[in-house]
Amino acid sequence: MIIQNDSNLIPSPVERVRERLCIVKVGGKIVEEPASLKQLLSDFSKIEGNKVLVHGGGRSATAMAAKLGIESQMVNGRRITDEETLKVVTMVYGGLVNKQIVAGLQAIDVNALGLTGADMNYMLSEKRPVKDVNYGFVGDVKQVNANILAELISKGIVPVLAPLTHDKKGNMLNTNADTIAGEAAKALAKYFEVTLMFCFEKKGVLMSETDDESVIAQITPALFDQYVANEIISGGMIPKIENSFVALNAGVKQVVITRADQIHTDSGTKIIL
Amino acid sequence: MIIQNDSNLIPSPVERVRERLCIVKVGGKIVEEPASLKQLLSDFSKIEGNKVLVHGGGRSATAMAAKLGIESQMVNGRRITDEETLKVVTMVYGGLVNKQIVAGLQAIDVNALGLTGADMNYMLSEKRPVKDVNYGFVGDVKQVNANILAELISKGIVPVLAPLTHDKKGNMLNTNADTIAGEAAKALAKYFEVTLMFCFEKKGVLMSETDDESVIAQITPALFDQYVANEIISGGMIPKIENSFVALNAGVKQVVITRADQIHTDSGTKIIL
Repeated sequence: MIIQNDSNLIPSPVERVRERLCIVKVGGKIVEEPASLKQLLSDFSKIEGNKVLVHGGGRSATAMAAKLGIESQMVNGRRITDEETLKVVTMVYGGLVNKQIVAGLQAIDVNALGLTGADMNYMLSEKRPVKDVNYGFVGDVKQVNANILAELISKGIVPVLAPLTHDKKGNMLNTNADTIAGEAAKALAKYFEVTLMFCFEKKGVLMSETDDESVIAQITPALFDQYVANEIISGGMIPKIENSFVALNAGVKQVVITRADQIHTDSGTKIIL
Repeated sequence: MIIQNDSNLIPSPVERVRERLCIVKVGGKIVEEPASLKQLLSDFSKIEGNKVLVHGGGRSATAMAAKLGIESQMVNGRRITDEETLKVVTMVYGGLVNKQIVAGLQAIDVNALGLTGADMNYMLSEKRPVKDVNYGFVGDVKQVNANILAELISKGIVPVLAPLTHDKKGNMLNTNADTIAGEAAKALAKYFEVTLMFCFEKKGVLMSETDDESVIAQITPALFDQYVANEIISGGMIPKIENSFVALNAGVKQVVITRADQIHTDSGTKIIL
């Protein structure tokens, strides 16, 4: 008996087309105003197929802390998270902002599931060691358990990730939303062809700061070096793109920097290897 | 060819032994103090097999509302939930209390997942119609989608249910934790042999109010009628047990009324048909 082994007919596991997954990270500002949140959720719902939303909520946390008489202290753009502040961010990120997003998505038939890193132990971190600054209950990500998350996504569930992790010693930890998005993207790249999308106030990375339409379509490592040398890319955009390359090197297919109202379109700046 | 069909060897779906599931409802008081919460989570972790924890958080919500200058208004033991109060309960129940429990369980290797009714649209409710009292954003449960919940439970996930539902129109709704526990139990009875456990300050339903050890081991509908006639069971315990019979008639295997420190033992009052 001859067994015909025709690789054109039977794709090998490696050649098998993997499902796409789009992970969108939005900052606090957009999700904290009812009108812009509604528009964002509508645009997000138009992204076809598997998707994940990662949100911030810093402005709401600062406002809530102020109402409770807790002063918000920021160092290098990061919140110093003492015990009282940890309660505030756990309430605001994990409760208020997260559940408003989840309920808003359910209203437009997106089967959302709000999660912190403690939920299903999906993202485990370590309290940041005290060096020059004591950031308090801030977590640096150590481990991502993406298997159940991937399974839920395959069933049509849309995770909504709050910027909170835990230390598996009973403490929630405050964790930057960009970091959550990047770490989730890297871990989920084992299961999906991941596009990681960062929303930004501009339409993408601009050739000229003064021309909002001068969006750079694509940035590769070689182009990045060139743009940095020419000072077209500078300041805070440099670490953002460097982090994107780290994600790409860890298996993420592409990183897109775009404006929130464009997430369902094919525009913005694509960062690829 | 003869196919042997021996029903002694192949159990029919009806005869198949269903897995047990224990749903424990605890009030706010226990979960709101670090020491009693830690003890509760330790006891809860000792319950073997599938389990679900349902929690309140009323005291924390009242305290947080007071700090924010919002007056808590109660009618018939139910919180009047205006727009500002809804934000407080969403934060406190869905964020603070729920995530403290989830992180606490993860610390002792219980793979907890915190949920509100909006998450995976698992519990859908309707804003209570205004009659004599306008309860505001309070939800009466209309639908429970237990299939994904049941699947997660079968995979070893332990849902931790906050007393919040949603209306699928974008609003979270405040919902009594006893109701959440009862509705979840009824819906999950399709998949599991459910024990629904209500924690109470006494060891069970008492024969004599003055004797804490006079726990009634078992209450059937006939015994219930007798105890009510003899005034052994009275007051708020009557609707509690009546609701238990509703749950039993809807497929729940047994309801147990017990003290929180006994949830992992086989004590308390068992209510059965």
